[in-house]
Amino acid sequence: MSPRSSKLAAAATEERGLKRIDLYLTPAAAERAPLEGRSIAVVDVLRSSTTIAWALKNGAAKVIPVETVEEATRLAHTLDAKTRLLCGERDGRKVGGFDLGNSPREYTRERVEGKTLVFASTNASPLMAGVLAGQPQRILGYVNLGAVVDALWKEGADVAIVCAGRVGRFSLEDAACAGALARRLADRAAGLALNDAAEMAAEYDRTHGADPEGILRRSEHGRYLIELGFEEDLPVCAAVDQVPLVPILKDGRITAPVSTPASV
Amino acid sequence: MSPRSSKLAAAATEERGLKRIDLYLTPAAAERAPLEGRSIAVVDVLRSSTTIAWALKNGAAKVIPVETVEEATRLAHTLDAKTRLLCGERDGRKVGGFDLGNSPREYTRERVEGKTLVFASTNASPLMAGVLAGQPQRILGYVNLGAVVDALWKEGADVAIVCAGRVGRFSLEDAACAGALARRLADRAAGLALNDAAEMAAEYDRTHGADPEGILRRSEHGRYLIELGFEEDLPVCAAVDQVPLVPILKDGRITAPVSTPASV
Repeated sequence: MSPRSSKLAAAATEERGLKRIDLYLTPAAAERAPLEGRSIAVVDVLRSSTTIAWALKNGAAKVIPVETVEEATRLAHTLDAKTRLLCGERDGRKVGGFDLGNSPREYTRERVEGKTLVFASTNASPLMAGVLAGQPQRILGYVNLGAVVDALWKEGADVAIVCAGRVGRFSLEDAACAGALARRLADRAAGLALNDAAEMAAEYDRTHGADPEGILRRSEHGRYLIELGFEEDLPVCAAVDQVPLVPILKDGRITAPVSTPASV
Repeated sequence: MSPRSSKLAAAATEERGLKRIDLYLTPAAAERAPLEGRSIAVVDVLRSSTTIAWALKNGAAKVIPVETVEEATRLAHTLDAKTRLLCGERDGRKVGGFDLGNSPREYTRERVEGKTLVFASTNASPLMAGVLAGQPQRILGYVNLGAVVDALWKEGADVAIVCAGRVGRFSLEDAACAGALARRLADRAAGLALNDAAEMAAEYDRTHGADPEGILRRSEHGRYLIELGFEEDLPVCAAVDQVPLVPILKDGRITAPVSTPASV
């Protein structure tokens, strides 16, 4: 990011306390990060962020992320069988015996309205319920990018963005979407400091962000999902601002409050 | 990288066996990587790669990277005091009692010619002597970018680039220099596959690679070195192709053979 010159915006930033955006490219990087006082955004574009956003848009009561498939099964036994759904994947495929996998196209109103979703995915849910356990987290994808930008801007605290990545590794699509968030916030606030990872990711968004589906198709994870037969998920996960909600994980459950994010 | 169309180049690539470039952004990422059969390049732009290249250009007999300051001291006791130099830094500063720190400007011909350098830095030497111990490694910086590109092209094997990073974390300047290597190789070989990290880093080089000093000045590590008083090191570390050598770590020592790299 080049320094920006608007003194008004700089003054506004100073008042707000939003001075830094730090991006952590993997869950391991976030483990060692100073997150106190930060607004935290978690990103797993392919596909948990997208799936969770669509589930809540389609009326799910809440999503409970858990670290493992086993924990999901145990927790599900304690919940009313009529209103809970077991959801999740391993290696991209629906877990045997679960109600739903991790394709956002499965999370229709018909299937999820009013339901409590117990959710165990490979990358996102261990990050949410494990590495970042106990910390309020906003769930970010391309589908709700603008809504998360607005929410974090209103919140006005320093931001930490954490990529779920892929089995602990760097993933292009998460970094790119994180870069989109960093860039949009930096465009609003003069003099915002970005860490090295946010700098590189924001630059990638600047040159490629106009075509998120292209990013997903180039990415290792996107190519893997195409091989598995989930090609139709890619445009769904790349559809910017199609789900203008900000799912928030707090007290172990993800909901999308209709109140202003700053009041949460 | 967009697909490239030269069928000749594609055929050449197929014969050579150079089909993939995988970038690992941190030493931890490299620990889990499949490196068998790969040509490995290690990058620590600020400043070990630059320092080692200059040391060898100025006539150092060899550089022995070790994991810790303690190991450096122990090893030095076993070497002829007249021909060995203890070199290294912690947090950017020269270690107390050592002969040289990690500023490439210290490694003049007067100081290093004919000497054996025992080298303990914070990021690069634990990667070289620890994580990647036993694997032949080429040392990459901006100062020898073109020479490393040529060497890897001649070698003709799949490439793994490993960033030293900064205390285990992502660092902009290492990723950017790795991206420069990936992009230059991809420009020579049609259809070369890049992993997600190489894709993002190559793109950063495409937009910013014309000004390496600007990258170094923006980076967290570069700003830290300026604070420490090493600002003059930055243009030295950003000076593309000023040291047309390919330092190679093999059998525990780094040298820069004058023979063609493919024969090493």
